[in-house]
Amino acid sequence: MKLREVAAMLNAEIEAYTVGSNADVDIQRVAKIEEARGGDISFVANPKYQKYIETTQASAVIVAKDLKVGVSQRLTLLRVKDPYFSFLKILQHFNPPLDPLPPGIHPTAVIAKSATLGANARIGAHVVIGERVNVGDGAMISHNVVLGDDVKVGENALLYPNITVYNGCRLGSRVIIHSGTTIGSDGFGFAPKDDGTYEKIPQLGIVVIEDDVEIGANCAVDRATLGETRIKRGVKLDNLIQVAHNVVIGENTVSAAQAGISGSTKIGKNCMLGGQVGLTGHLEIADGTKIGAQSGIHHSIEKPGMTYFGSPVHPQREAFRIQASITQVPDLLNTVRELQKRVEQLEAQLKQKSE
Amino acid sequence: MKLREVAAMLNAEIEAYTVGSNADVDIQRVAKIEEARGGDISFVANPKYQKYIETTQASAVIVAKDLKVGVSQRLTLLRVKDPYFSFLKILQHFNPPLDPLPPGIHPTAVIAKSATLGANARIGAHVVIGERVNVGDGAMISHNVVLGDDVKVGENALLYPNITVYNGCRLGSRVIIHSGTTIGSDGFGFAPKDDGTYEKIPQLGIVVIEDDVEIGANCAVDRATLGETRIKRGVKLDNLIQVAHNVVIGENTVSAAQAGISGSTKIGKNCMLGGQVGLTGHLEIADGTKIGAQSGIHHSIEKPGMTYFGSPVHPQREAFRIQASITQVPDLLNTVRELQKRVEQLEAQLKQKSE
Amino acid sequence: MKLREVAAMLNAEIEAYTVGSNADVDIQRVAKIEEARGGDISFVANPKYQKYIETTQASAVIVAKDLKVGVSQRLTLLRVKDPYFSFLKILQHFNPPLDPLPPGIHPTAVIAKSATLGANARIGAHVVIGERVNVGDGAMISHNVVLGDDVKVGENALLYPNITVYNGCRLGSRVIIHSGTTIGSDGFGFAPKDDGTYEKIPQLGIVVIEDDVEIGANCAVDRATLGETRIKRGVKLDNLIQVAHNVVIGENTVSAAQAGISGSTKIGKNCMLGGQVGLTGHLEIADGTKIGAQSGIHHSIEKPGMTYFGSPVHPQREAFRIQASITQVPDLLNTVRELQKRVEQLEAQLKQKSE
Repeated sequence: MKLREVAAMLNAEIEAYTVGSNADVDIQRVAKIEEARGGDISFVANPKYQKYIETTQASAVIVAKDLKVGVSQRLTLLRVKDPYFSFLKILQHFNPPLDPLPPGIHPTAVIAKSATLGANARIGAHVVIGERVNVGDGAMISHNVVLGDDVKVGENALLYPNITVYNGCRLGSRVIIHSGTTIGSDGFGFAPKDDGTYEKIPQLGIVVIEDDVEIGANCAVDRATLGETRIKRGVKLDNLIQVAHNVVIGENTVSAAQAGISGSTKIGKNCMLGGQVGLTGHLEIADGTKIGAQSGIHHSIEKPGMTYFGSPVHPQREAFRIQASITQVPDLLNTVRELQKRVEQLEAQLKQKSE
Repeated sequence: MKLREVAAMLNAEIEAYTVGSNADVDIQRVAKIEEARGGDISFVANPKYQKYIETTQASAVIVAKDLKVGVSQRLTLLRVKDPYFSFLKILQHFNPPLDPLPPGIHPTAVIAKSATLGANARIGAHVVIGERVNVGDGAMISHNVVLGDDVKVGENALLYPNITVYNGCRLGSRVIIHSGTTIGSDGFGFAPKDDGTYEKIPQLGIVVIEDDVEIGANCAVDRATLGETRIKRGVKLDNLIQVAHNVVIGENTVSAAQAGISGSTKIGKNCMLGGQVGLTGHLEIADGTKIGAQSGIHHSIEKPGMTYFGSPVHPQREAFRIQASITQVPDLLNTVRELQKRVEQLEAQLKQKSE
Repeated sequence: MKLREVAAMLNAEIEAYTVGSNADVDIQRVAKIEEARGGDISFVANPKYQKYIETTQASAVIVAKDLKVGVSQRLTLLRVKDPYFSFLKILQHFNPPLDPLPPGIHPTAVIAKSATLGANARIGAHVVIGERVNVGDGAMISHNVVLGDDVKVGENALLYPNITVYNGCRLGSRVIIHSGTTIGSDGFGFAPKDDGTYEKIPQLGIVVIEDDVEIGANCAVDRATLGETRIKRGVKLDNLIQVAHNVVIGENTVSAAQAGISGSTKIGKNCMLGGQVGLTGHLEIADGTKIGAQSGIHHSIEKPGMTYFGSPVHPQREAFRIQASITQVPDLLNTVRELQKRVEQLEAQLKQKSE
């Protein structure tokens, strides 16, 4: 692909400082700027990587319209509005997503007669599809996936190998779920009895995963006790995340890996949870809340758009102030001990004077 | 089902404030009180939900014998001793547990000749059952489950899809295990060598899971180095929990999701672990211990029935006292700085006076 | 096996205090010293277990050359340089690793024609092997494992049941991976758009797992965005660990369960991570760093060989000093309040005197 074609695709301006370089150079691959060789196109969006512009071997580098670059003999720049999105676009052009499953229905798949499969649905080897399941057009159900009875999978959803979806759960269009994840297992509900044992509370609800949600590997999303556990449109969950029964996660909320959300907690939209965050049950978290990694949230958050840290959490500024102050406590103890002595001395001196 | 029949089943007293309502009303479903419609029966056990009694559309509401309710025209109450248990009872009546697997042995299951299957054992598609495995009467081994050689599964146990049980592990009667969980993987045992590499310590023990244990989705329970890792009768584990080699968990202990128990630690009976709790190895935790979410336990707990919080943990009252006090440290630093100045001034004044 | 043969194998000296005991006693099993019976051989390496020497029923006990033991009538000792390694050696002799999979290729496995399998590779039931996959000599691919296209598995690797390896990932020789683990799922990369939704960043890299790595059950190792996520030679990971995209873990580093390593973080060699440790992204951790359980690391660590604790972490000594001091803050608040009063009194007294 000629550089002029790349520029046209990205609506970019070519800025060449190289004698030999020009719009006809052949772009063959995309690469990270510090690893790029001749024939590669790369990008700089993060200022941390700007230093590589001087030394990169890339045939062209995508940069922002207003980025100031020291002129050199061998540099060809593509000036764009948003270098990162332009890079994604060219990345996808050079690396169209591999089909992770060949088309068709593998003969080893076990599919209930009452199930309906959309046009171009791809079904892998050793898949099990239950009664009355509905798989949308173009959806992928990869090897060894199990879909319980009455499960619904939307159009163009991608289910990677070794996923289990329990009875009755519904997945929207373009949902992506990675391997090892369990959707719809029983919520953790047990009623204590007088003899110290527990009675299992039947978990009769379902899980609803709306359109455009992506869930990482080895997550667990429990079905509701009654009603629904619901992950709303556009949510992105990383790996090894726990979503308990009757949780609701709002639109476009993202969570880093190993976070855990306890039962019936409702998280607003456009929130961000850091890794290993824990939320106790029955909370309501306002839209746009950001929670730092390893934080523990024990109370609802009403004011939208705030950032929190710590276990237990405090608003970001307070949390940082507390964290910084805590490191001074060992010295503070000494200071106070010394102050006590000085006050005692003062008291003794004054007493002596009074006598 | 007529309301009078429901009342008889629950040993309940009908208390009707409705003109038209009576013991012959037809109860068709159970529902949450805030969502119930005509034909539904609901309940109030938690005072937080009492407010819905005024507005619910339910045909009947199960309440405690002594609950005070403002009389209204359209209310029908069922007075019982324990509303929650009564609700569970009626819930199970209206929603008998779905059979998550049809009866019989799926022809795609691969079952060793030396394995023995109890009467009415159900075996799903693509299951693998090793040599000398014993599956009890009425047990369910769902799709894609793998049981290693010499595994024993008790009567009426329920193993959901995509579980792996390694060689030699034993599961009791009525054990429930959810999808993606691994039972019997090698414990994390490596001996450091002089060159910085590690020698694997063979993990030769097994896992024993006693009767009436339930384990959530995507947990990992390691086999013992020698002897057993043992989860005792009635234990309930939530999702994504780590149980290391040679751990013992006592009867009726429950743990919330993402807790981790390190090697050889012994937890007593009737304990409660919060979510994301971590215990280091070789500890002994007394019966009835409760540990708050995200706590870290580095020492054994000898006194039974105590509650702990924090990382590292302290007894609940002390932990709360410390947590509250820590938020005052930033101000305390200022207070002490100011005190220092005042003491200096006092010292200067006294010195001046003495001269 | 005669005790004299055991002694020869371990290069050990026999030290017998028993009348009847001698080099011809028959050793049949290995056992923990507190559980050993006649015919068993056991060991003492940890001083905590030394007390059992007096009461053990073992026919022989492996001990260090210089261990002082109270002489008794019935004891037979094997004196060696390193009792633990000697025990491992004899343990492996009596318990040769069980073949967790019979030899051969199970007829239910679905193997692409373009895949190549080494001599003596064992392939379990319901395995799926993609196009151009290469499985090394003697490797085990156990039941229900899925290997995507172009995956490479080294010689004598052991893949336990229900593992998924995505397209293009490469596993070295003698790699061991336990059940439920996912290798090569998409990294968590999403670019925020102006409307609050996210655009998926294609994850085009792979995972490389070098020789002699062991990974526990239900871990998640994400593929790189571009390039590689790399787990280097000799690394040992426990269960339920998160390894994000573009992470590099250095040679012989070990991590306890439920640790999480965020994107692009590079961990040095011979490091030790405790359980539930979390590292944020784009960090560099020096060789030989040790991080205590539940710690949170937010900055790079440059100095090698140091130990850290806490969330956020501090060097071990400082962390312990801070932790100990924090418990004194509630009393400190009282002390300072009292000091304030005494200073006020002093100020008042001085003022009075001055008047």
